Amino acid sequence: MSGSIDRRRLFQLLGGSVIGGGAYAGLGYAARQERKAEENDCRGGKLWDLHHDLFGSGILLSPQKLGGGTHAVDLATNRTLAWISYWNYGDTCPISHHLAAYPSDDPRKGFEFINSTQGGENVLIYGIPTRIKEKGLLEGNGQGNHLYRVRYDGAQMTLVEDVAESTGIGLGVHTVIYPDAQGFAGADGQKDITAFFDRPRGTEKTKVQMAFRGDWKAKDTSSLERAWLGGGTLRFTRLVEPSETGKYELEGSKGNKINWEMAPMSELLVERGQIPGDSPSSLTGLDAVVHHPGNRWSAVILRMCSAALIVDRANWEPVACLHMPKGSPGNLPVKKVGSGPDAWEVTFDDVKNPAHEAGFSPDGKSFVMMNNLRQNNIPVFDTSDPDPRRWKKVTYVEDPDWTGQYPSPFHLCFSMDRTKMFLSVLAPKPRDSEVWVVDARTWKVIKKFRNVGPDCQTMAVSYDGKYVFQIFSGFQRLSCGLFVFTQDTLEPVGYFPNFGGHHDCVVVPTKVEHLLNSRCTTL
Amino acid sequence: MSGSIDRRRLFQLLGGSVIGGGAYAGLGYAARQERKAEENDCRGGKLWDLHHDLFGSGILLSPQKLGGGTHAVDLATNRTLAWISYWNYGDTCPISHHLAAYPSDDPRKGFEFINSTQGGENVLIYGIPTRIKEKGLLEGNGQGNHLYRVRYDGAQMTLVEDVAESTGIGLGVHTVIYPDAQGFAGADGQKDITAFFDRPRGTEKTKVQMAFRGDWKAKDTSSLERAWLGGGTLRFTRLVEPSETGKYELEGSKGNKINWEMAPMSELLVERGQIPGDSPSSLTGLDAVVHHPGNRWSAVILRMCSAALIVDRANWEPVACLHMPKGSPGNLPVKKVGSGPDAWEVTFDDVKNPAHEAGFSPDGKSFVMMNNLRQNNIPVFDTSDPDPRRWKKVTYVEDPDWTGQYPSPFHLCFSMDRTKMFLSVLAPKPRDSEVWVVDARTWKVIKKFRNVGPDCQTMAVSYDGKYVFQIFSGFQRLSCGLFVFTQDTLEPVGYFPNFGGHHDCVVVPTKVEHLLNSRCTTL
Repeated sequence: MSGSIDRRRLFQLLGGSVIGGGAYAGLGYAARQERKAEENDCRGGKLWDLHHDLFGSGILLSPQKLGGGTHAVDLATNRTLAWISYWNYGDTCPISHHLAAYPSDDPRKGFEFINSTQGGENVLIYGIPTRIKEKGLLEGNGQGNHLYRVRYDGAQMTLVEDVAESTGIGLGVHTVIYPDAQGFAGADGQKDITAFFDRPRGTEKTKVQMAFRGDWKAKDTSSLERAWLGGGTLRFTRLVEPSETGKYELEGSKGNKINWEMAPMSELLVERGQIPGDSPSSLTGLDAVVHHPGNRWSAVILRMCSAALIVDRANWEPVACLHMPKGSPGNLPVKKVGSGPDAWEVTFDDVKNPAHEAGFSPDGKSFVMMNNLRQNNIPVFDTSDPDPRRWKKVTYVEDPDWTGQYPSPFHLCFSMDRTKMFLSVLAPKPRDSEVWVVDARTWKVIKKFRNVGPDCQTMAVSYDGKYVFQIFSGFQRLSCGLFVFTQDTLEPVGYFPNFGGHHDCVVVPTKVEHLLNSRCTTL
Repeated sequence: MSGSIDRRRLFQLLGGSVIGGGAYAGLGYAARQERKAEENDCRGGKLWDLHHDLFGSGILLSPQKLGGGTHAVDLATNRTLAWISYWNYGDTCPISHHLAAYPSDDPRKGFEFINSTQGGENVLIYGIPTRIKEKGLLEGNGQGNHLYRVRYDGAQMTLVEDVAESTGIGLGVHTVIYPDAQGFAGADGQKDITAFFDRPRGTEKTKVQMAFRGDWKAKDTSSLERAWLGGGTLRFTRLVEPSETGKYELEGSKGNKINWEMAPMSELLVERGQIPGDSPSSLTGLDAVVHHPGNRWSAVILRMCSAALIVDRANWEPVACLHMPKGSPGNLPVKKVGSGPDAWEVTFDDVKNPAHEAGFSPDGKSFVMMNNLRQNNIPVFDTSDPDPRRWKKVTYVEDPDWTGQYPSPFHLCFSMDRTKMFLSVLAPKPRDSEVWVVDARTWKVIKKFRNVGPDCQTMAVSYDGKYVFQIFSGFQRLSCGLFVFTQDTLEPVGYFPNFGGHHDCVVVPTKVEHLLNSRCTTL
């Protein structure tokens, strides 16, 4: 409140004639008629005041998926700070998918973010009566898997680099910044590829630090149906940069095993052969990486294997494999099986269910991942041991509502005070999804916001500890928005509009340590 | 206020556990810990309550220009009702330009709108470092000038027709619905073409009722510089539908005289030869039509001629030509000069300045149009006479601020009580623009909201008489938003974000008579 008043005083000093609503209303229309034109600044009014009182700071950055762009909203003024639309740059299928923002001392003066895009047939899975494929626009750069590095310079956003073009590695799903803000990891669940990138300065281009591919070898190869349920082996291979060109050959749709992504809770479509492609049987569903706050370990997320492979970023070797299903061992051994290129294997007796979004608590003591479809719970790992080979599955977040496939725990993040975990809980189209609150000490569900909106996706927290922002994307065709509630008292605050399918969001960090509660440790 | 309370009661009856902020805050976190998960609907909170209290109804529809789509926001819930992105349909340069919505009894259950797009080189005029032209994406359907008819069915928006494709007439600027909602007019200032379209029902396609082209013949043909200043003749020609194909041949860039639009206040660039094209010397700048509330007369807006040609929609003949500059005659005679095809001419002794946006007051008694650049004022015509040949220029809105080219009166609309005219007042990039209020009885400026935001474009009014919505598009690259103030007491209310270049807006009419205060009578 005092922030708001100070700001209004400042405007008055700067010459703005800000008049409080009450005082202003006292001047009748007739009285004003007598005088010359009255001048008024715009910084005032009920909506203006409420936004300043509630949201004293914070730039919310959100990619709009089929909308094709990304937008930054200044939460205090409730104005759009800046935005970008990727078709302007000649991208013919710019599904603005996920993003992560590097910290900036003052985001209003500038910041940088990495924005993955999907492309190709991913535009066809939402029931839009389109001829975009017949027009040939899903070829060429319409294949997607761009990794756009975008800079806001204090006035406007500009696309400064397509990391996929610079490096030859195109990845269309999660982009997750390192805890020290010195680079990011990208991943793609159609290709089963993850790559770790440095952070270029000035006019430099991004470089690949290391890249890997995951491949599944089923024990039972008689059908897709038993390919994961029946167990098998994860092979994790280090990718080698072609020395003559200095570029990988994995742009666009190169390397795709399936022709479009597994939408959330769609892993079983692969078992049923309902997602075509070159190699669904070897799919691991490697679509994300999250980083342990200690800045050494990264967890490579494998949806089909229901696992998180822990990679040591000090020597780029995997060391342990956390396995999610209830009733399965929690930590599987990783064995190096080859070199030139390096390869490691993990053996799974079975895979009781797929798992999806995941994250570390900001104190680094816990890791969670969502068991979906055949199980519907959240395993919690104790990750406080310095050696990931000793990380242990210690409990599960469970709830009477979590029976059958839906509603289903989905994305997560943690409160700034580390006492709570927030979960989006997905219902199938066209139903409204929910956002739940879990006590991060007892791992019990303590609150459920029902009927938030269709297709709740990621959440962001304000770093002042006040608010949680839950984006819902309306399955790209239905109503969408951003639901806000308080981090401490868990009260609803209201909604923001979402101008087009936005399905991810982060608050631009103003300190490196904010990354522990941002798109770094959690998805 | 009572509307909001009723709504919350209703939710409670429907089973939502809506608890007021105060009551809720009384429950400590520890107390809640003891119990099973608390359930909460999301319909509540300070922001929710304020939106319901302020904006009990209204769907704001806004096209996002370079964002490439159009969005409908439910002002009461502050959620996005639905949206559409035109690249999803294979449009490679979908500059979502202007729109008008047909009335709907209940827009939340469905409504329809017409959305023009620009395309081609119009994407290149904003300083974006893009290779979209080199990639060939400004050819084919990237040429733009689509007229998308979009239907919201109560759940999602779908593109049901490209009127440009159905009729062969592509027009990229204003789309303006008839006062009886039985059709619309489109126009394009690169082609100097206007067409009048019917309103199809069910699965029918749109048909052209009539189409015209404007051409300028300068008296002094020695240079572009004197081509309009020195006077000349407007020739207005009826276009003929090719009988063998039943389709005009004016899709995409066909018929363009200049290669990109004259941006606001850019008419003098044509005089200086700074906008290339096939025929800048014949340019009339015919980029809009507005309709007289009586539903018979339409004003065809001619920017370069500083004129509004009044067309009788009963017999599709022009009858009078209103001429804007101060010091010039206000009503010029129109002479039929040919048939097969029909053609009419209007002679101008000189054109003292270009003019741009225009509109009729909702009572039909006044017409205004903006004198820009060489003059900076607003002529007001008395249009109460049944015969447009007797419409008279009676006064000017003038202001000490309006000297030189900027700030410059731009778009306009009227209050529901007809006592006020609202004006966006444009400042050059990157400066903030303003919104002014004019007493529509005395034609004096009574209020100026300074520093609204960069690039204020159109306004919309809420049909309950409460609010004015002023969109600002940030010149497509800067901060953008929607400024709201009250229609009666002229107090600021606050801002809404604008997720990407939105530069036009209408509130979806719920009654046919709302069109008199919507994108029908004014631009």
